[in-house]
Amino acid sequence: MQIYKAHILFTRERTQFEVIPNGYIAVDDGKITGVYNQLPASLAGQPVTDFGDKLLIPAMNDIHVHAPQYRNLGIAMDLELLPWLDNYTFPEESKYSDTAYAERMYRRFVHDLWLNGTMRTAAFATIHFDSTRLLMDLFKEAGMGARIGKVDMNRNCPKALTETIEEAVANNEALIAEYAKPNALVSPIITPRFVPSCSPELLTVCGELAHKYNLPVQSHLSENRNEIAWVQQLEPESHHYGDAYNRYGLFGDTPTVMAHCVWTDGEELAMMRDKQVMIAHCPSSNFNLASGLAPVRRFLNEGIPVGLGSDISGGNHLSIFRTMVYAIQTSKIRYCQDKSLPFLTLPEIFWIATKSGGRLFGKVGSFEQGYEFDALVINDHELNHDNYNLLHRLERFIYLGDDRHIEHRFCRGREIAEPKITK
Amino acid sequence: MQIYKAHILFTRERTQFEVIPNGYIAVDDGKITGVYNQLPASLAGQPVTDFGDKLLIPAMNDIHVHAPQYRNLGIAMDLELLPWLDNYTFPEESKYSDTAYAERMYRRFVHDLWLNGTMRTAAFATIHFDSTRLLMDLFKEAGMGARIGKVDMNRNCPKALTETIEEAVANNEALIAEYAKPNALVSPIITPRFVPSCSPELLTVCGELAHKYNLPVQSHLSENRNEIAWVQQLEPESHHYGDAYNRYGLFGDTPTVMAHCVWTDGEELAMMRDKQVMIAHCPSSNFNLASGLAPVRRFLNEGIPVGLGSDISGGNHLSIFRTMVYAIQTSKIRYCQDKSLPFLTLPEIFWIATKSGGRLFGKVGSFEQGYEFDALVINDHELNHDNYNLLHRLERFIYLGDDRHIEHRFCRGREIAEPKITK
Repeated sequence: MQIYKAHILFTRERTQFEVIPNGYIAVDDGKITGVYNQLPASLAGQPVTDFGDKLLIPAMNDIHVHAPQYRNLGIAMDLELLPWLDNYTFPEESKYSDTAYAERMYRRFVHDLWLNGTMRTAAFATIHFDSTRLLMDLFKEAGMGARIGKVDMNRNCPKALTETIEEAVANNEALIAEYAKPNALVSPIITPRFVPSCSPELLTVCGELAHKYNLPVQSHLSENRNEIAWVQQLEPESHHYGDAYNRYGLFGDTPTVMAHCVWTDGEELAMMRDKQVMIAHCPSSNFNLASGLAPVRRFLNEGIPVGLGSDISGGNHLSIFRTMVYAIQTSKIRYCQDKSLPFLTLPEIFWIATKSGGRLFGKVGSFEQGYEFDALVINDHELNHDNYNLLHRLERFIYLGDDRHIEHRFCRGREIAEPKITK
Repeated sequence: MQIYKAHILFTRERTQFEVIPNGYIAVDDGKITGVYNQLPASLAGQPVTDFGDKLLIPAMNDIHVHAPQYRNLGIAMDLELLPWLDNYTFPEESKYSDTAYAERMYRRFVHDLWLNGTMRTAAFATIHFDSTRLLMDLFKEAGMGARIGKVDMNRNCPKALTETIEEAVANNEALIAEYAKPNALVSPIITPRFVPSCSPELLTVCGELAHKYNLPVQSHLSENRNEIAWVQQLEPESHHYGDAYNRYGLFGDTPTVMAHCVWTDGEELAMMRDKQVMIAHCPSSNFNLASGLAPVRRFLNEGIPVGLGSDISGGNHLSIFRTMVYAIQTSKIRYCQDKSLPFLTLPEIFWIATKSGGRLFGKVGSFEQGYEFDALVINDHELNHDNYNLLHRLERFIYLGDDRHIEHRFCRGREIAEPKITK
């Protein structure tokens, strides 16, 4: 049993913060047993870790990110999607056949997630078995949660980034055998890159693997209009892009997260609602790649689950706090152009980043009883130069703060030390 | 004479960077006398300050910012413009009748501009004479350049933030007498807040002051559609919002900078081109206040001068580097919605932030001969973990970096020490 004292802020409901000044959280075996204004008699005499005037908030979840694009973060941002993929993304991912290179970059990637307070991550790796294993082991070594996808792809990409159907099945099954354990902190997720990269045969086996092993699925959906037209050519019998996944059992039969959905509408939107397919909203990437403004208010109105993704290196930073700001700004520009969709408020986007996105990892992202204790201690002393109230302190940290203000990080009840990098 | 050695990057032209690896800049009496690949014989034997593997770039110019909104940075971002003004902005500005409060906040404001590498600033102060003087003196004390506007306003705002016409003239003339000196680093700029805040009589005297003393002018223009409709009601004889300033001699008769111009079009656009009125593009603020996406590509095509403004606390940060990223992202969303307007590239936005915006302050913002030496030394060692080329290093600093990577700051040839704050 651990008890932590601090100013506690989290979002039980979407529309408002719970604020407990000088509150207590009791944690047992990694799970929250209670949140209190005052310590109850039953806990009297237990040792308390007192964080004083600091803020205690749920840790961040990043539900869409490309780990092997870490080196490309913040470069070549003047290119459009196709030359960017051909000249930067695919050549970089090809390097991950070299596990020494992979280790150097993946250690930095895991370190920087930690730095930014992201304790749970759904990541695309590459097609390579060995470096994907390595990435999973680095998350385990750090003690941080992850769903890691060995990427499956076999068309419209360089030869070096393809494999046979048999290799794809064998490599996925080997990872599943090693990592798909009940309650595992780090586990596999079936990851067809996106329809244009995967032949019908490959999509078929991806769907079969997801069903056979009851594994979650992640991919990309309706990111830009050219891509949607291309998918329609490649899968002419599908009613919409989402249907092209659904025909292969990859659209909500098991827990599924689809990145972007900027242009999702009509039947696709209805299918996502009916099958509860989660959307990874990646606003920074949607700006940088000129993809557009995803209609998150509509997703919420429909009851479609939504979380946030940094989507590096389409996104230009790993901070989910900065992603929150971009998500609000995206919704404000949509609102400016169409007043029927109110913009997202701070509690709403905080709830999306924590409790809503956290569903991909179990009971993660809230401080309610029974949730895993994933938390950040925010030391905002520098930002709080004029006695701001607690909600304004949190807002200032989100809008102005950075990794310098994150003082402690917890995942599943354990404090997470700084992961090692190699020079 | 000082000589500095580093990797030199700047934008002489809008469309490309000048890149001089291990280059030299010679500075005499605050002005650049030459930039060299190799030190010429005439300078042989002179002492050289060698910054080694670091980047040397022009310092930033912020051409639209509200100094007294510093305390409100990053709070109340869920409000729309009118309740935000009434509940946060105006009450905060009213506090600046107290010079002790003003000093505490203005010292932090100047400090944080310094921290973020902004060496020249065009700022709105408040209506208050004493605290405006104080702000000017704090910039002088720091050694950083500024055009400071005592704000003029007398309608549609709290009584505490109004003054009589006679007071407005007397206070402006007192500041002009004290600070409007040739080549002064800190000097006044005539600042009617915006048309809705200024009676015709006040706009008349603002125009007269600008003409009489040949002073520059700053204000707000066409930020959002409700505001434009309101101005049309208030000034029914004007052909457009810009014309409402022009009728009072406040639109390009002297150097003029207008913030936002999100909705500027047609005759207003043509008048800005013909009278070379500079636009302060404030993309962060235009997101946060749901104002819209300013058409910067059109401004450039028309030959209208453009610079960047942080516009705190509508903007949520003081970093002009982050403002560059938001400006590119704004242009990408416009491009996504209208492919006839190509998005801004990195050299273009760098040129806008430095050489173009710098025109408001004289020969500032480039490393060409005769320009004042305003510069930053960027230590991007942490960001350069894999031998990136110099252009990618600059791009990564702009997209990923922050004040931690700015190691030295120069304004008009002097290295600027960290300004003092009061607790």
